[in-house]
Amino acid sequence: MNDHDKSRLTFFRDDILRMRGYQAGEQPQGDKIIKLNTNENPYPCSPSVVQAIRSVEAGGLQKYPDASATAFCTAAAPILGVDPNWILCGNGSDEILSIVTRAMVGPGQKVRWPFPSYVLYSVLTDIQGGLSDPVSFAPDWNLTDEFYSDQDQLGLVFLANPNSPSGTLLDPEKVLELVNAVRCPVLIDEAYADFAGVSCVDLVAQNERILVSRTLSKSHGLAGLRFGYLVAQPQIIEQLVKIKDSYNCDALSIAGATAAITDQVWLRQNVEKVRSTRQELSEQLESMGFEVTPSSANFVWCKHCDRSSLEIYEYLKSNQLLVRYMEFGSWGDGIRITVGTDDQVDALVTILSSILKKP
Amino acid sequence: MNDHDKSRLTFFRDDILRMRGYQAGEQPQGDKIIKLNTNENPYPCSPSVVQAIRSVEAGGLQKYPDASATAFCTAAAPILGVDPNWILCGNGSDEILSIVTRAMVGPGQKVRWPFPSYVLYSVLTDIQGGLSDPVSFAPDWNLTDEFYSDQDQLGLVFLANPNSPSGTLLDPEKVLELVNAVRCPVLIDEAYADFAGVSCVDLVAQNERILVSRTLSKSHGLAGLRFGYLVAQPQIIEQLVKIKDSYNCDALSIAGATAAITDQVWLRQNVEKVRSTRQELSEQLESMGFEVTPSSANFVWCKHCDRSSLEIYEYLKSNQLLVRYMEFGSWGDGIRITVGTDDQVDALVTILSSILKKP
Repeated sequence: MNDHDKSRLTFFRDDILRMRGYQAGEQPQGDKIIKLNTNENPYPCSPSVVQAIRSVEAGGLQKYPDASATAFCTAAAPILGVDPNWILCGNGSDEILSIVTRAMVGPGQKVRWPFPSYVLYSVLTDIQGGLSDPVSFAPDWNLTDEFYSDQDQLGLVFLANPNSPSGTLLDPEKVLELVNAVRCPVLIDEAYADFAGVSCVDLVAQNERILVSRTLSKSHGLAGLRFGYLVAQPQIIEQLVKIKDSYNCDALSIAGATAAITDQVWLRQNVEKVRSTRQELSEQLESMGFEVTPSSANFVWCKHCDRSSLEIYEYLKSNQLLVRYMEFGSWGDGIRITVGTDDQVDALVTILSSILKKP
Repeated sequence: MNDHDKSRLTFFRDDILRMRGYQAGEQPQGDKIIKLNTNENPYPCSPSVVQAIRSVEAGGLQKYPDASATAFCTAAAPILGVDPNWILCGNGSDEILSIVTRAMVGPGQKVRWPFPSYVLYSVLTDIQGGLSDPVSFAPDWNLTDEFYSDQDQLGLVFLANPNSPSGTLLDPEKVLELVNAVRCPVLIDEAYADFAGVSCVDLVAQNERILVSRTLSKSHGLAGLRFGYLVAQPQIIEQLVKIKDSYNCDALSIAGATAAITDQVWLRQNVEKVRSTRQELSEQLESMGFEVTPSSANFVWCKHCDRSSLEIYEYLKSNQLLVRYMEFGSWGDGIRITVGTDDQVDALVTILSSILKKP
């Protein structure tokens, strides 16, 4: 739609007409392509998930689900070391991020995050009519002093930890420093925390401005199920609940997620496999001339020393292998590669070798 | 939380701290209670739904779903008589209502609907910092002239059709009059339209300000699955997509909903059963001294001629039968009873008879 047409749609909010929507990674619906572009788990979820889903199917789907996903909260609470009422469940952690932004950010308020990071933060800010205020990471992927400057109208801070696309991690002590240096809530987006083995959930009890979001999409192998959750103090959850749709999690996902979080043995084994392959992938990439950022997640961020990232991405794609090419304006570009199975990584290495041999 | 505590949570938007959240109908998670309070379908969904869900399970849940729910849009388009890009899928039609409100309503803008109606409209308006502007129905459940008055800052009109709690219907000609009499978009919430056999989907092509939302929760017996959709012109959908979470519908619900919408035979048979029981229920209630509003939905709205609605609700509840007691301020109160199975309606009639015999 061109600008002339847009000017006709005056009943939309200006913020919406002006903004670009979030561009998700390509999701070809087929099996031929090796998909290492959206940080999905290469392994199937715990078998107990499918069992749990089937038992819900058997009872019928005609009734509304439990609005509070009580079964999940009850199962997750002891694992997380909190009470069940410290947990808010969502339709993927994207919905959790959306709920928190809608609760905290009004027109003209600033939302800050270290840059580059998850592109959705800016989209959620735009929808609210807020002001995106990304502050570049230091070269070592720590925060700079600028991150704490000019907090006027600062409504919310996002911190993806581990970060995407870099895969880098701030340890909990540094996160606590960040929280103490700002006055607004800090949402720590722990989509990839299981792969790091480090979490800030323990910090939530220390400060009501600390909110930690999690997803089952990555480490639990359940991107197709849509289930995420927030850990925060109960007086925070109580306000956020007002914003969520009553029945935001369906009956199948509540049952599946409950089974998934309960099967910690599957989770640990899965994480171990991914970490081991991540190590292998990083070494292979380095041996082929890539600069690889040390990763605490289930993907690696890399650039080749003398080939363009876009060229590599396109060559891989033409060979039925999808990775994520990402471009962050003046900050530069690179390739984010999801850790797949060992076989998928072997296939990647083979294709990469062939392109790098070319003049 | 008391007001003193709330005043401490200054990092929440005032609109959120001030508002009350939506109070959904009670959802006891158990089988003993006869649940006629949230307009669920008493019959199981089409068997093809469960088959479709199982086939997704077999393929694994580790990958993200199709962000556009293409399979559903393709299956639903010929049934609805539109192209697939006129359909936006959501995590229940509540999410559709939320997306539209977020797109259209900014702080200070008015949202109007005939009163009484779905209580969520006011909650969604509050979240946006908008102004709820309900206008009472005429005694015959038509719209009054007041509905078209003072349109300054009017950003959106909601019309539940059939309406809840009344079950009444405005025919498409009257809806078109409404649309032509206002300048803003009109969202026609057709959650119950299958039970009426009348829809405004055909009007969407006539005016881009007409948006029609639908849900699979009621007539398809899939409240537990969370799937709804909007029919609107493509330039409208294009803006709304910016607001939805990328993967707002999970893989199981997309497959299940596609199977459900395809099985129109099941739908017709189900609707016929519900309509037949609705007739029976209405007659029984009238014979017991209830004033029953003629219903085009899968529930009836009624008041007894000399017993209080609250008393009847509480007595039924104490007998393990839940209906919805609803109270709309000066407009008055009543009981909304979902059309259950014939056996459930028989049980209701038996319990009601026993209370009405008491002095």
